[in-house]
Amino acid sequence: MQAIMKIKEEKGFEIRETPEPAIRHSNEVKLKVDVASICGTDHHMWVYDQWAQKRLPPTIPFIAGHEAGLEVVDIGPDVKNLQIGDKVSMECHEACGTCYQCRSDRMHICSNTKIFGVDRDGIFADYVVIPELNAVKNDNNLDPAIASLQDPLGNAVHTILPKDNVEDIAGKNILITGAGPIGLMAIPVVKMLGAGQVFVTAGGNNLLRLETAKKLGADMVLNAREEGDKIPKIIKDATDGVGVDVLLEMSGNIYALRHGLEALTYGGRVSLLGFFPGSIEFDINSLMISKGAAVYGIAGRRMFQTWQVMKGLLKSKDLQNKLKNNIITHRVNMSDWEKGMIEIHEKRAIKVVMDPFK
Amino acid sequence: MQAIMKIKEEKGFEIRETPEPAIRHSNEVKLKVDVASICGTDHHMWVYDQWAQKRLPPTIPFIAGHEAGLEVVDIGPDVKNLQIGDKVSMECHEACGTCYQCRSDRMHICSNTKIFGVDRDGIFADYVVIPELNAVKNDNNLDPAIASLQDPLGNAVHTILPKDNVEDIAGKNILITGAGPIGLMAIPVVKMLGAGQVFVTAGGNNLLRLETAKKLGADMVLNAREEGDKIPKIIKDATDGVGVDVLLEMSGNIYALRHGLEALTYGGRVSLLGFFPGSIEFDINSLMISKGAAVYGIAGRRMFQTWQVMKGLLKSKDLQNKLKNNIITHRVNMSDWEKGMIEIHEKRAIKVVMDPFK
Amino acid sequence: MQAIMKIKEEKGFEIRETPEPAIRHSNEVKLKVDVASICGTDHHMWVYDQWAQKRLPPTIPFIAGHEAGLEVVDIGPDVKNLQIGDKVSMECHEACGTCYQCRSDRMHICSNTKIFGVDRDGIFADYVVIPELNAVKNDNNLDPAIASLQDPLGNAVHTILPKDNVEDIAGKNILITGAGPIGLMAIPVVKMLGAGQVFVTAGGNNLLRLETAKKLGADMVLNAREEGDKIPKIIKDATDGVGVDVLLEMSGNIYALRHGLEALTYGGRVSLLGFFPGSIEFDINSLMISKGAAVYGIAGRRMFQTWQVMKGLLKSKDLQNKLKNNIITHRVNMSDWEKGMIEIHEKRAIKVVMDPFK
Amino acid sequence: MQAIMKIKEEKGFEIRETPEPAIRHSNEVKLKVDVASICGTDHHMWVYDQWAQKRLPPTIPFIAGHEAGLEVVDIGPDVKNLQIGDKVSMECHEACGTCYQCRSDRMHICSNTKIFGVDRDGIFADYVVIPELNAVKNDNNLDPAIASLQDPLGNAVHTILPKDNVEDIAGKNILITGAGPIGLMAIPVVKMLGAGQVFVTAGGNNLLRLETAKKLGADMVLNAREEGDKIPKIIKDATDGVGVDVLLEMSGNIYALRHGLEALTYGGRVSLLGFFPGSIEFDINSLMISKGAAVYGIAGRRMFQTWQVMKGLLKSKDLQNKLKNNIITHRVNMSDWEKGMIEIHEKRAIKVVMDPFK
Repeated sequence: MQAIMKIKEEKGFEIRETPEPAIRHSNEVKLKVDVASICGTDHHMWVYDQWAQKRLPPTIPFIAGHEAGLEVVDIGPDVKNLQIGDKVSMECHEACGTCYQCRSDRMHICSNTKIFGVDRDGIFADYVVIPELNAVKNDNNLDPAIASLQDPLGNAVHTILPKDNVEDIAGKNILITGAGPIGLMAIPVVKMLGAGQVFVTAGGNNLLRLETAKKLGADMVLNAREEGDKIPKIIKDATDGVGVDVLLEMSGNIYALRHGLEALTYGGRVSLLGFFPGSIEFDINSLMISKGAAVYGIAGRRMFQTWQVMKGLLKSKDLQNKLKNNIITHRVNMSDWEKGMIEIHEKRAIKVVMDPFK
Repeated sequence: MQAIMKIKEEKGFEIRETPEPAIRHSNEVKLKVDVASICGTDHHMWVYDQWAQKRLPPTIPFIAGHEAGLEVVDIGPDVKNLQIGDKVSMECHEACGTCYQCRSDRMHICSNTKIFGVDRDGIFADYVVIPELNAVKNDNNLDPAIASLQDPLGNAVHTILPKDNVEDIAGKNILITGAGPIGLMAIPVVKMLGAGQVFVTAGGNNLLRLETAKKLGADMVLNAREEGDKIPKIIKDATDGVGVDVLLEMSGNIYALRHGLEALTYGGRVSLLGFFPGSIEFDINSLMISKGAAVYGIAGRRMFQTWQVMKGLLKSKDLQNKLKNNIITHRVNMSDWEKGMIEIHEKRAIKVVMDPFK
Repeated sequence: MQAIMKIKEEKGFEIRETPEPAIRHSNEVKLKVDVASICGTDHHMWVYDQWAQKRLPPTIPFIAGHEAGLEVVDIGPDVKNLQIGDKVSMECHEACGTCYQCRSDRMHICSNTKIFGVDRDGIFADYVVIPELNAVKNDNNLDPAIASLQDPLGNAVHTILPKDNVEDIAGKNILITGAGPIGLMAIPVVKMLGAGQVFVTAGGNNLLRLETAKKLGADMVLNAREEGDKIPKIIKDATDGVGVDVLLEMSGNIYALRHGLEALTYGGRVSLLGFFPGSIEFDINSLMISKGAAVYGIAGRRMFQTWQVMKGLLKSKDLQNKLKNNIITHRVNMSDWEKGMIEIHEKRAIKVVMDPFK
Repeated sequence: MQAIMKIKEEKGFEIRETPEPAIRHSNEVKLKVDVASICGTDHHMWVYDQWAQKRLPPTIPFIAGHEAGLEVVDIGPDVKNLQIGDKVSMECHEACGTCYQCRSDRMHICSNTKIFGVDRDGIFADYVVIPELNAVKNDNNLDPAIASLQDPLGNAVHTILPKDNVEDIAGKNILITGAGPIGLMAIPVVKMLGAGQVFVTAGGNNLLRLETAKKLGADMVLNAREEGDKIPKIIKDATDGVGVDVLLEMSGNIYALRHGLEALTYGGRVSLLGFFPGSIEFDINSLMISKGAAVYGIAGRRMFQTWQVMKGLLKSKDLQNKLKNNIITHRVNMSDWEKGMIEIHEKRAIKVVMDPFK
């Protein structure tokens, strides 16, 4: 089969002919890729930035890609809850299953985790073989392009609902700092969960993202470049002086974090998804400690409560349409993957989906 | 001023001339009633059923009514967070503030609680005086008729979100057993909170309620009289054999409870709001214990997280319209209260709201 | 090897010679049994009561027993976190791993669960082979007799701490209804978790259990036969009229449940572990609903948070000594299993542990 | 009466004759001071450091002190749950009761809070008058010196149990960074709550604190001055490579925070109580975000769940003795307050308690 692969320790991906994978463990399933989409991580690997140079060499060469809508075409003898013909998405984290984290409902932060499309062959190809556990059944009529978005949508949902015991979206005011694909997807989700007012801040030159935030239902979109340090006051004025109940930090920008924490009400909740360029410096005394804030670091998505929540949310045609019409900005064939990658690199795309090789 | 009062230890209410109440404690506020609505409790007191005969005599005579949209017209010297002109709703439970329950975030089940319109003068009148704490500020442009519904809407929201640490509506399948005013209001609320499928069961002769349930967005409405013991299987078939994640019991009907628990998935959650006619009998082994169910008894509404959630939810015009168009079926002047009461008694009304005396 | 087996569809077990089990799946471990203990379930199977007659025939013949302290003697090629020589205990529930419950942190109530010693060969033998996941590593110096108690101790701990989001033992007053092995073990555990006052009620003719409850640290032990309906008042009088914060129902006795719920404070928490003889009847209105109680059905023990908690608790020599000196009342060789079983049958034993066949 | 007062905007306190306070609101109680203890805040005010210079001028002159064991000597007409003769401690935060925070179970971080002994007259005197709500009833036989410690003990308990939905001490490994009075008191408390291993780190020249940490039951006490960057590895080695489940940061030292976060397991929990000298800088990506940490800012103590937990914990004579023998290092008469203050200033004291003026 054909596959988009990382072959060399330098910038770039290449299309190569490679053997079709086969089931080797009794609990595995073989999946045909219906639609794939390109993640920011794929872009990092393509650029071969510092993170990629450190992480990738041991696994090169490998097939890239981990966001996909797929179909089960073969199952191992110990597969229990999937059948040939089932439509699935892929959870890209392969957990060990028996470490301290896995044994305590934290499989998504397993200390031995491997990632498909990074540590293992991914889904920029015709087929992939993964454990049954990593294949999550979709409603059979779900559009595979939407199915492929569940990986980043899952990041958004996990940021919004980080733990079983956090219930603070319904009727509450929410601030989302950052309007990349995940931040944007978070907007219709918090609206679906009954959020009161939804504020979004984003750095200013990318007007596409600010406009998309409005289309997706944000009550107030603030251009961080223009409003700067006025942001906390603007938000407090719009919330009877109380501030927001929840801060979803999706930018990895220190100013966004500081403004967000200033705009947070006493005892409010924060989820941190965005990665920062390096160490950060801020006034933890007033912004976290005396504020009584609850702050959650977010990694991946819960295996598999986040997926179960998504399955229910995606029964909404309205959410499906919002994702299709506003998040998926480009669609190409896998053989034209480089066109899509360049759209991302040039920040003209929010999400690029790819159809299988012709 | 005029007031609808319980005067005698027998069926009925009477309109009487009674002195306008005045602020007597420094933390009280005086409120003008903009709109009142009639609760099932008012109906019980009017009928003077067994519960009423046991509960009311010590406080007769008193002004009835506890659901209202009101406006602040005077404030005591120690009132801190309300001003004259503020629009408010009333929390009808007056908690003592210093008992074990009040000191542990359970003021709504205070062991010394008094209820306005039952133990204290209520709001079927021109004015009422209550502590600042019991007056909950609304957005000033909220329709007072909607404001008056927040008492039963709060019961619905508290049933749906019983505790800080329960977050299980988003993307989950929900069964609501019972379609009285509170059960019906729960439908658009769980939909707003991102519920997957919403099932509603109700006893069969009241088609108005079954039809209203559909209009309010239920995915499947089951007539309990017709479907009977088939209900659990119907629900499991519609949920991949899994059953519902959450049961909101709002009927006080033993068959509804049994069917609901059968339809509940292992480890699911139950909120019990409906009062049963007396002691009940059921198979607790299979329906609660080995099922690993989490069951919450619901009383009143949380003071005041439930109100804060409602305030945010009611920013939605869609929710406001659903309540106005489907829940409020009758509107009369207070001087015609008896007409409204009879509509309730004859089960032709869902909710009757009343304008102040002309 | 020798094994204590259920051979016939009638009362009794038999010692038989049977082949030593071997690793057949790559993720399995082979374990040598150091110490086994006899569970109430083993007694049910031996008696061959109604439950056993219904449940067992499909799996007969099989090796009984599921409580053990064991040692790893062989590992499959995909075993990741265990080594030969590790000391382990066995979680007796084999979950499917991929069903709705397993995918949402509820593996202990997996809908496809199989139980070692009931549905699969158990540990009343020299060796057993189980998946790595079901073998839980102990501190290597833990007495294997204590290790074997972790199955029922886990039931106690799970009853005490049913969910991540339940934290209500520290400084709170606790009522344990029932003083079988699990109820008794719960006493030192809640004491270790900082409980305020601990009340224990138990049916009266078994003075051994009442006396053991006192030795294990209960502040007040009430003989239910003698005190009867006075129990709720006695408990309220001892708690400033407030009642207990937590009820751990471990008896399966309807009177104990009713008394316990009456003694519970408003908004209190209940865990239900004890199985009742059949359907039960009680006043759910006053005892659960208006009381605002939170009631959790308990099945098994969490996989594997309960085990992680136990591992930490068992670092306490004091807890180890309490279990050894008060819970383990008899110790026999496996070849003398029938003596131990009769001690249990005659209610002279709390826990019987067995050493391997000589 | 006599009182220790802040009179001038400069270093120092003075003993003055001042009128005995009287009940002025119907919900107040008048309390006689049995024992007072000196808090670090009192020391700041005495030194008149930057914080004090900014905070105090508007309220000078005032009576200092907020940690006390007291007795009710008079009650207002609306006091409901206290009687003359009751022994109480004082919660020093006076919340407004009706703001957003107060209406959502976060009274301890009320946005309008006033503090007795800082914004209002405190308890370094014979009498004080406070609202009933702020007087928390003790068991009448509790030593008033222990009663006076409940203010800082409450900080410790709130740091350990920050929310209803956090239950992660039982059986878990805990790291306490900082061994001031609050950090030291946390040691026996986490031990009482069933902690597995308890690690304590503290800066090195104050051997009294390191030795006290050992006496109070810490499993491993690490001198941060000696061990430095080796601390995370030492802790991981002692926990099977897993790290601690919970970090209680009580030092306000950036190195302690970084080491603590490095020693934390994936998905672990952090409570931040210690105030830092200013803004801090650290690698939030690896230490919070990808680690999936849950971090809680801690302010004050919960009103009044923390007090209810303390009341239960203090039923333990063992805990009482540990506090009395290890935390209270000095006892003087109020007329000798300056001797006690100097012991604190010279870091020779852990806690100084004071008897009323002779």
